[in-house]
Amino acid sequence: MAKIETFDNPHPNRNYAIRHVAPEFTSVCPRTGQPDFGTIEIEYVAGALCVELKSLKFYLQGFRNEGVFYEDAVNRILDDLVAALSPRTMKVTGSFTPRGGMHSVITAEYPDKS
Amino acid sequence: MAKIETFDNPHPNRNYAIRHVAPEFTSVCPRTGQPDFGTIEIEYVAGALCVELKSLKFYLQGFRNEGVFYEDAVNRILDDLVAALSPRTMKVTGSFTPRGGMHSVITAEYPDKS
Amino acid sequence: MAKIETFDNPHPNRNYAIRHVAPEFTSVCPRTGQPDFGTIEIEYVAGALCVELKSLKFYLQGFRNEGVFYEDAVNRILDDLVAALSPRTMKVTGSFTPRGGMHSVITAEYPDKS
Amino acid sequence: MAKIETFDNPHPNRNYAIRHVAPEFTSVCPRTGQPDFGTIEIEYVAGALCVELKSLKFYLQGFRNEGVFYEDAVNRILDDLVAALSPRTMKVTGSFTPRGGMHSVITAEYPDKS
Amino acid sequence: MAKIETFDNPHPNRNYAIRHVAPEFTSVCPRTGQPDFGTIEIEYVAGALCVELKSLKFYLQGFRNEGVFYEDAVNRILDDLVAALSPRTMKVTGSFTPRGGMHSVITAEYPDKS
Amino acid sequence: MAKIETFDNPHPNRNYAIRHVAPEFTSVCPRTGQPDFGTIEIEYVAGALCVELKSLKFYLQGFRNEGVFYEDAVNRILDDLVAALSPRTMKVTGSFTPRGGMHSVITAEYPDKS
Amino acid sequence: MAKIETFDNPHPNRNYAIRHVAPEFTSVCPRTGQPDFGTIEIEYVAGALCVELKSLKFYLQGFRNEGVFYEDAVNRILDDLVAALSPRTMKVTGSFTPRGGMHSVITAEYPDKS
Amino acid sequence: MAKIETFDNPHPNRNYAIRHVAPEFTSVCPRTGQPDFGTIEIEYVAGALCVELKSLKFYLQGFRNEGVFYEDAVNRILDDLVAALSPRTMKVTGSFTPRGGMHSVITAEYPDKS
Amino acid sequence: MAKIETFDNPHPNRNYAIRHVAPEFTSVCPRTGQPDFGTIEIEYVAGALCVELKSLKFYLQGFRNEGVFYEDAVNRILDDLVAALSPRTMKVTGSFTPRGGMHSVITAEYPDKS
Amino acid sequence: MAKIETFDNPHPNRNYAIRHVAPEFTSVCPRTGQPDFGTIEIEYVAGALCVELKSLKFYLQGFRNEGVFYEDAVNRILDDLVAALSPRTMKVTGSFTPRGGMHSVITAEYPDKS
Repeated sequence: MAKIETFDNPHPNRNYAIRHVAPEFTSVCPRTGQPDFGTIEIEYVAGALCVELKSLKFYLQGFRNEGVFYEDAVNRILDDLVAALSPRTMKVTGSFTPRGGMHSVITAEYPDKS
Repeated sequence: MAKIETFDNPHPNRNYAIRHVAPEFTSVCPRTGQPDFGTIEIEYVAGALCVELKSLKFYLQGFRNEGVFYEDAVNRILDDLVAALSPRTMKVTGSFTPRGGMHSVITAEYPDKS
Repeated sequence: MAKIETFDNPHPNRNYAIRHVAPEFTSVCPRTGQPDFGTIEIEYVAGALCVELKSLKFYLQGFRNEGVFYEDAVNRILDDLVAALSPRTMKVTGSFTPRGGMHSVITAEYPDKS
Repeated sequence: MAKIETFDNPHPNRNYAIRHVAPEFTSVCPRTGQPDFGTIEIEYVAGALCVELKSLKFYLQGFRNEGVFYEDAVNRILDDLVAALSPRTMKVTGSFTPRGGMHSVITAEYPDKS
Repeated sequence: MAKIETFDNPHPNRNYAIRHVAPEFTSVCPRTGQPDFGTIEIEYVAGALCVELKSLKFYLQGFRNEGVFYEDAVNRILDDLVAALSPRTMKVTGSFTPRGGMHSVITAEYPDKS
Repeated sequence: MAKIETFDNPHPNRNYAIRHVAPEFTSVCPRTGQPDFGTIEIEYVAGALCVELKSLKFYLQGFRNEGVFYEDAVNRILDDLVAALSPRTMKVTGSFTPRGGMHSVITAEYPDKS
Repeated sequence: MAKIETFDNPHPNRNYAIRHVAPEFTSVCPRTGQPDFGTIEIEYVAGALCVELKSLKFYLQGFRNEGVFYEDAVNRILDDLVAALSPRTMKVTGSFTPRGGMHSVITAEYPDKS
Repeated sequence: MAKIETFDNPHPNRNYAIRHVAPEFTSVCPRTGQPDFGTIEIEYVAGALCVELKSLKFYLQGFRNEGVFYEDAVNRILDDLVAALSPRTMKVTGSFTPRGGMHSVITAEYPDKS
Repeated sequence: MAKIETFDNPHPNRNYAIRHVAPEFTSVCPRTGQPDFGTIEIEYVAGALCVELKSLKFYLQGFRNEGVFYEDAVNRILDDLVAALSPRTMKVTGSFTPRGGMHSVITAEYPDKS
Repeated sequence: MAKIETFDNPHPNRNYAIRHVAPEFTSVCPRTGQPDFGTIEIEYVAGALCVELKSLKFYLQGFRNEGVFYEDAVNRILDDLVAALSPRTMKVTGSFTPRGGMHSVITAEYPDKS
């Protein structure tokens, strides 16, 4: 995976929301070897650091030829971004295109919603 | 009905949401013998187990030639999935196509909303 | 008005939501004698009884040639259904097509929202 | 049926198109006695006469409690309007709401498309 | 301005919601003399009185050739309707079409949201 | 398959168009045994006979548990309806839901488009 | 009515299309005195002259308090613009909001479509 | 930057909401020198002052040839408007068009959401 | 590239249209090495052979990690399918997602449109 | 203006269509000095040359701070692209956002439509 790069939050004293929507996510189903497609949406309140957009794009492209289940992809993206950014809060949502006539949406949050 | 199969929740320590949308649900009206059509939406927070998608598809196909009322179908799907998965929470919604100029939506939750 | 018929709630121990949407409602304006058109939406949590769909259709058709104001129609439908079903909660919404360049939406609930 | 009233075409030397769309058409199915609903669209190039809108509304309301098949309603409306207006050309389209899971659209033209 | 007329609330013991949407509002910009256009939406819970629709239409038409700012128009409509109806609650929203590449939405409530 | 029933064209001297849209078509894939779903649209200019709607519904339901490829289903429906109705012209279109990330649309006409 | 002003067509040797869409047209019904609302769309191929946009806006505003039927308004706008611009071709379309549950669209062309 | 001008709030005793939506915002990416595009939405409850629309337009146009990151632009607009208006509350949202296949939305509020 | 497999056209005597829409196409930009995304739409009238859907999916997946320009991809898909199927006519359209704020659509036909 | 760069048409023997859509076009009104915004759509059949996308983006950005009327901008883009590419056919369309409540669409073609 490409390294997630950051820049200093220009307004660290304000709890404002940042949302990036990446509709060109693709990975590979570990069971069938077939490609999966979806939209990844990342919403967070930054602490000291913001994610740099180009590195985020390269990081997400790192899943292109990797076998991963939906549930796992979304949780791993959340874990990696939380580790890189130490945000105050973050939510990652993956909306995947239909397979077998069903489509799926996975949503994970930090800190964990209880 | 096909058996609902499961796999181990890869992130059991996080309360994240999983939603599967199945727009190709069909059953038979027990009164008229005519086919009914609708979309079944399942949203849950997993405990130790996640539902395996292919088995979910086969389970829902099991209603194809079975006579069942809307209200009953949605509650049975909820009961069967709760029994198989022991989720922390689950909501099942069935949206059915018009009959006699009216369409219907049924929503049931576990644990029961009081 | 046709009698509203009921059947036993198949899952009386769960507070699940039932919604029926009837986009083919028509009545007559008591002032002008001209037909009115709208959509009636009924959402309820059943107690011991559910409304039977065919009788609901005939009940709503009973307004076809009757003079009634919007505000009155929605409240009467709520009253009649509450009397027939003794639901735990119920909401009735009527959305009417434009007259004089304005359209109207009336929403009444049981128990009354305070 | 209410009489279709007319007024003199204010620009009889120009072949311009007039279209009226009436989404509140309702009649009764002659087989089941149940109400049908649809949208009637009338497009014509006037000769010496234009249809007066209020009388057109009353004319279409005349079908409210009359039993008529889709195919027949659209052709009769075309015949009646051609008789009243002697238009250069006219097309009548009826788009009806779903019955038994199917909806229907009927289109008739004057002069007949060969 | 035309007088806002009322009729007795047919169900005064219930707190039900009435919404009227008027998409054909027009007034004049007091600065430029140019016409403004927008949609006025009125939602209220009636006390003893409901607003009569035809008089509401004439009242809103009273702004047609009057110079008024967006913020002022919405607050005046709220004040006038509250004075005429003594509603339990009321919200008036004005959504205006773009001027200078920007469009505006004004929302005022009674009693005042604190 | 249920028999396609007909009634006499009430306006046989006019070449008017009749379109029926059936969004609840389902059959079975002969290769996988899995259900397929789609919308069948039938547009025709009647000769002496029109198709009776209820029998058309039953006829299309006859594919529910039958194995048939998309290309074959659409052509067979066209052949069966042409045989039953002897229409002046007819077009049958089948639009099927995604399988393997692709959806398909098949269109056949009578007489054959050259 | 405000004068329609023009400027020299900057590319008079090319038959290119110019379309202006004015969704804020309003006039007064000569029968009821009530305001009418609609969208006027003007599409033309210029000869030596193009219409100046600000003067077109003022010209259309000239209908604001004038009584005029739909059919007449569209034809008059076409006549006035043809007189002012001598275009190679022009089409004027007026789409009006619902009155009595019906909406209307009028389309006139120069030269006249035969 | 153009000066943000104000006018006296005509209804200072009421906490009503004012929203301006500016879909024609453009600035320059400080990294690449390429133009960025987006929609700026400003929603506030005025204190003693309202923002004058024309000066708001000129103020936002001041970003046209200025290099600024998304996160910075939204926070600066909020800071400048709060300084000029002393509103009771204000929210500024910037929705930017896709770059590298991702689009971004930034939302900042005054007082800061904790 | 995976081999394009075929099956015998079940209705070779009729010129009917087959359309397959593949919204999950992805390739790599030969200049930047970045992934491209788009929808490939294939419409044809079969001769003796139809394209088998699963092999079509694998064939299109063959572009996943291959560097190819938009114009080239669409023309190559057309060439490969024409070589495999000898269709009577075929049209291939590629609609690609925005790059640098612009999106592109390429359409090629066999036989060549003159 | 940036130079329009080209590359060799990879399939010069086929008359296939290439369409580029640029929704981020902006220029300046020569009368008011205010920015204008619109979408430029370019569709052409290439001869020996195709337009290189990055240079097309820079060329269109050249209008950012230039005063130009709508009619002139579209015709100049067509002239410049025809001069650079010598296409077999080309159509340029500009759709501009509302000014004074009206929006405009200009379409020019090469060779000139007669």
